[in-house]
Amino acid sequence: MSAYRSLFEVAAEIALINSTGSVLGWDQETYLPERALDFRARQLSYLTGKAHGLLSSKRTLKLLEQAEAEVPADATQAANVRELRRALDRATKLPQKLVREESEVCTHAKAAWVEARKASDFARFAPHLEKVLSIARRKAELFGYEDEPYDALLGLYERGAKTREVAALFETLKLQLAEIAREAVAKSCWVKAEARRGRYPIKQQQILNREIAESLGFDFKAGRIDTTPHPFCTTLGPCDVRLTTRYDETNFLSSLFGVMHEAGHGLYEQGLPKADFGLPSGSADSLGIHESQSRLWENHVGRSPGFWHTWLPRAAELFPQLRRVKFDVFMREVLRSEFSFIRVEADEATYDLHILLRFGIERRLMKGELAVNDVPKAWNEAYRDLFGMTPPDDRRGCLQDIHWSMGGLGYFATYTLGNLNAAQLFAAAKREKKITVALEKRDYAPLLAWLRKAVHSHGGALTPQEIITQATGKPTDAKWHIRHLRARYLS
Amino acid sequence: MSAYRSLFEVAAEIALINSTGSVLGWDQETYLPERALDFRARQLSYLTGKAHGLLSSKRTLKLLEQAEAEVPADATQAANVRELRRALDRATKLPQKLVREESEVCTHAKAAWVEARKASDFARFAPHLEKVLSIARRKAELFGYEDEPYDALLGLYERGAKTREVAALFETLKLQLAEIAREAVAKSCWVKAEARRGRYPIKQQQILNREIAESLGFDFKAGRIDTTPHPFCTTLGPCDVRLTTRYDETNFLSSLFGVMHEAGHGLYEQGLPKADFGLPSGSADSLGIHESQSRLWENHVGRSPGFWHTWLPRAAELFPQLRRVKFDVFMREVLRSEFSFIRVEADEATYDLHILLRFGIERRLMKGELAVNDVPKAWNEAYRDLFGMTPPDDRRGCLQDIHWSMGGLGYFATYTLGNLNAAQLFAAAKREKKITVALEKRDYAPLLAWLRKAVHSHGGALTPQEIITQATGKPTDAKWHIRHLRARYLS
Repeated sequence: MSAYRSLFEVAAEIALINSTGSVLGWDQETYLPERALDFRARQLSYLTGKAHGLLSSKRTLKLLEQAEAEVPADATQAANVRELRRALDRATKLPQKLVREESEVCTHAKAAWVEARKASDFARFAPHLEKVLSIARRKAELFGYEDEPYDALLGLYERGAKTREVAALFETLKLQLAEIAREAVAKSCWVKAEARRGRYPIKQQQILNREIAESLGFDFKAGRIDTTPHPFCTTLGPCDVRLTTRYDETNFLSSLFGVMHEAGHGLYEQGLPKADFGLPSGSADSLGIHESQSRLWENHVGRSPGFWHTWLPRAAELFPQLRRVKFDVFMREVLRSEFSFIRVEADEATYDLHILLRFGIERRLMKGELAVNDVPKAWNEAYRDLFGMTPPDDRRGCLQDIHWSMGGLGYFATYTLGNLNAAQLFAAAKREKKITVALEKRDYAPLLAWLRKAVHSHGGALTPQEIITQATGKPTDAKWHIRHLRARYLS
Repeated sequence: MSAYRSLFEVAAEIALINSTGSVLGWDQETYLPERALDFRARQLSYLTGKAHGLLSSKRTLKLLEQAEAEVPADATQAANVRELRRALDRATKLPQKLVREESEVCTHAKAAWVEARKASDFARFAPHLEKVLSIARRKAELFGYEDEPYDALLGLYERGAKTREVAALFETLKLQLAEIAREAVAKSCWVKAEARRGRYPIKQQQILNREIAESLGFDFKAGRIDTTPHPFCTTLGPCDVRLTTRYDETNFLSSLFGVMHEAGHGLYEQGLPKADFGLPSGSADSLGIHESQSRLWENHVGRSPGFWHTWLPRAAELFPQLRRVKFDVFMREVLRSEFSFIRVEADEATYDLHILLRFGIERRLMKGELAVNDVPKAWNEAYRDLFGMTPPDDRRGCLQDIHWSMGGLGYFATYTLGNLNAAQLFAAAKREKKITVALEKRDYAPLLAWLRKAVHSHGGALTPQEIITQATGKPTDAKWHIRHLRARYLS
């Protein structure tokens, strides 16, 4: 047996352990009884330890070295060896002591964050953020970076991304996005809430959500939808992809767009090469690619007039109050834009501004240009700069996100990279006439087939920028996203 | 650290792995998407292999030998060392080759059984049963036994039980049970189905089931109820006990008694010493004890007039059609008895006859007194002997149970042992006046407290017969069960 083949078996075993952890994690979010949480944490940390031990074992290292010495059979094999090396290095570069310290710091930071947010009192969270930041800096040094420490964190979520380049990209976006957001919000002020009248029973919402997810191509024989306070998508095995959503009985669009978003993630996961499950080539590439899939289905497909031309009549069967709503009025509701202090409540036209703000703050924190205690001030200034308003308190300002308390510095940028990739991929797909024609007829199979081929089938065998470049002819470029937003919100 | 302490840590680690397997198993029965089954089987067999490897490792054996040489701190420690030895011997006595062979034989046997049952064609199942039997015989030889090979199988489920003694016990029961069953069924012929009219919406059933389970003492912060085709109870951790039930919209008693039965198992699991989770002293004792808990709550509490005096009014709030039903009429419905060809549909008054039949057939198969091909004939003769009728086909005869196809020979007897133990324990508990008084007032806490002390708190530190003897003054004796059935069905 070749070393590569043996290495594959190790990777498959690690995937078996990690996917078991995903089952436990999914259950924790959906059905776990309250008092079972402590033991669940022990089960999960046991599995994490086993997977880490296997990845960083001497045998795995030796197999990897042997596989690196072999002539790769093809580009996929070469990519897998390269990516397994990256994973192994990452797993071994951090001493166990630091991993444990981070886990402990974050446990306390998360609890403090919950309290601080409730009381809107940043001072309670500040000392914890200080510790999280110090660990992030140490991690960046251990992982290594080219230009600045933030690269090492960003790279955890977006392979190959450079802070400097992302910053430049975001800088070109800033003024245009702020202008689009302002005009979109101004236009929405006049939209009456006609399409929001009445109750939308959860059972009926579930019927519509399922029909739509199925029509997009989500395979319910290899997946399901459950209910959680915070929607997510998780993969429990090569044929087991689970979405969640939440319901608002006064607004069916909330759960529906949630499902379309998560189904976008789910379609990507269901489209990965199953035979390579556990290998980089059988795993999702990066968050910026993952988010491109969710945003593409949610925003580009789901919020388009073509989509609602065919689906509004069906929605009106399930929710009779919609029968009296005119199509244009309904679409204005679908595209309603409002300034929100809270990122997760932001709409398509204003969302990226929230990301630009966070990216800037994180980068300055990591560079040491911004002190933790000055975060609220910096946040509020940046918010005013972008949105023309000041958050009324830190709860609706710098304390709103869970990410920092979990050590997730470097994560936020991928949301906007996802939006940019979504627009660029969708524009490229629409160059194929049959895709556009099919979309108008509620036929999403040609679009899905295009995405399967251009994105899903590669898994992580290509880098994010290789995927985008092969699929669209160019690396990630903001112009498609801007063009899309202008067409949708300013015309 | 003492060897015992180190051994405890190994046992806790095995429990961590096995409880993770229980999460996966629960999910498989409740929410797993269809196409995810293959991968789930791989995850589960991986965990089983890991747990087995840990238990049968040289290190564990050495720790066990050292712990055996230590002076035990108390009787619990002594029992734990003794029981871990039994578990380790059992895990190591079977060569891996046989374990794999059994798993493979059973996979095919189960598939063949499904087909054979559907077609009511025993010949399709016979060659597989032959193989299962041959493996059972080899296992019995490897495990060892005193009197006859069947002892080794029975002992897997009921520690310390002897085939000869169980056979003698069942022999004394046979005629009395057959007489009780006949009369109970004859009386029920005259019961009109008045209490069965109308629909019982599932949502309302769930409200009642939960209220009742909660009132018995089932802790929903450490457990839950879901829906499956076959009800069960499973433990996912020291504070995570999950029940399932199924619903019949024409008969709320079906799901309710199902929940009371499973809640009986669940109360036992929730009452085990949590600090000993993973040790024999923190685990359920035997199936005959487990089943005594489910039957006690389901039959002795749940089917009593005192129970319905307080709960029927509440049921009538949820199901208005019950308002017009007189108490006596309702109770006749609760205690309706019918001869059934199918064991799982049998009622309290006829159930044990099904067990006696199976026990006799299994014992004769193992002894070589009965050939596999003669099972249908022997089954039908025994059925006629006990019930006075012949099953119309093998689907409703010897092909009805899944147990043999899964290699579960030796299991059935524990159902009736559970019934006997339930009656004996309940009679002992009721000697305490305050328990009887409380029961009439819908207060189940004193009964539960008695069971916690007499049964649950011991886990597997006592043998089943030690538990029954300490709690009731005598080892398992059939007279309480017979007395109970006579009082309920023949008076």
